[in-house]
Amino acid sequence: MTEAEEGASTILVPRRSASPYLRVIELDGIAHLNGQLPYLDGAVPYAGTVGGGVSAEEAEECARLCALNVLGVIQQELGGLERVRQVLRITGYVACVPGFDGLPAVMDAASAIFVEHLGERGRHARTAIGVAALPRNSPVEIEVTVALHSAERAG
Amino acid sequence: MTEAEEGASTILVPRRSASPYLRVIELDGIAHLNGQLPYLDGAVPYAGTVGGGVSAEEAEECARLCALNVLGVIQQELGGLERVRQVLRITGYVACVPGFDGLPAVMDAASAIFVEHLGERGRHARTAIGVAALPRNSPVEIEVTVALHSAERAG
Amino acid sequence: MTEAEEGASTILVPRRSASPYLRVIELDGIAHLNGQLPYLDGAVPYAGTVGGGVSAEEAEECARLCALNVLGVIQQELGGLERVRQVLRITGYVACVPGFDGLPAVMDAASAIFVEHLGERGRHARTAIGVAALPRNSPVEIEVTVALHSAERAG
Repeated sequence: MTEAEEGASTILVPRRSASPYLRVIELDGIAHLNGQLPYLDGAVPYAGTVGGGVSAEEAEECARLCALNVLGVIQQELGGLERVRQVLRITGYVACVPGFDGLPAVMDAASAIFVEHLGERGRHARTAIGVAALPRNSPVEIEVTVALHSAERAG
Repeated sequence: MTEAEEGASTILVPRRSASPYLRVIELDGIAHLNGQLPYLDGAVPYAGTVGGGVSAEEAEECARLCALNVLGVIQQELGGLERVRQVLRITGYVACVPGFDGLPAVMDAASAIFVEHLGERGRHARTAIGVAALPRNSPVEIEVTVALHSAERAG
Repeated sequence: MTEAEEGASTILVPRRSASPYLRVIELDGIAHLNGQLPYLDGAVPYAGTVGGGVSAEEAEECARLCALNVLGVIQQELGGLERVRQVLRITGYVACVPGFDGLPAVMDAASAIFVEHLGERGRHARTAIGVAALPRNSPVEIEVTVALHSAERAG
């Protein structure tokens, strides 16, 4: 995985795994992506819950990394960002203590990445949810569904 | 936003915001709506978790308000309820303490609104989830996906 | 409901209920299933949260039962497993204490059932989430979306 430069929004190159499930399912012009964690160089940079050891700013950084991993999966698995017709839906999960009221700000950090790299095609319907735990104790995970142009048109 | 009358189920008129994400994405006859909070007159009427300050009855009221805001978004953004072909899926999130076992009853209050206003077209697949926190400390948020008739047919 | 044999992966026959929502919505080749609980003989075999009374192994058993109920709904409501073109997305919710880091292993138990019974058609995009509570205090619930072949082709 390439390291993101300080302050830059560099699409990440997620590592492939041998998991029994797929990173993305594409069918009839819709791509369903696996829930994406904020991997950077093969590791999740923060562990725990927002309000219980992880700051809101660190969660925002994780949200950005999740989004950059999504874009990396689209590049690796779907043939490139030009295939994106429209990001349809993002459900953002933030591991947090009860009462944490900064969920929209955390997810805004992910939403901004999609608009930065995809413009209007990156705008999306969104839901932000505060949960008890996420895989690898990640503070953030995002689930994304994307409409695609046909591979021929993109090529 | 118009105030809902006591005991009536009046579709709400949600306020538009300048958020970076959209209230609804419509593509190829499917509308993906933003997660909807129980706004009434621009505010969420209860804050906190069910079992930790918010009663099950108050959560049911919130679920109804979420559903009425969904219908309001359909009216404002999609051209009216007559465009609804079928409500496909509702994922209902309830901020609650561990062990709260009234999730289906809370979400039944939302489901009933869709059936009241849309009949068979308002029936849907549903998932109810108890979570740690939601935006604005709302006790309830619902995520809805709807199949639409084409705008020509509805007009 | 038929009881699953020890060690076997027998598709379950879920009981029908008179709920106001549907067990599955099928439209234009996509089936949206209700959130599925780990019913066995009409009851959820474990109650509570993982890390708070329910073990990871018991949660894995629940995940398997959720998946077997999904397959049962497909058989009962959609005409049989041969209609499945592709499982598209599974969102797996596990009621757990904060810090539980075994979410992928729990959901792997569900994923394996789909691959066992459907082969490549059973592979899917997946998201695993740890939550505060689920209906009937179930430790696991899964939300599944499936692409279908037309009923004529399957018949």
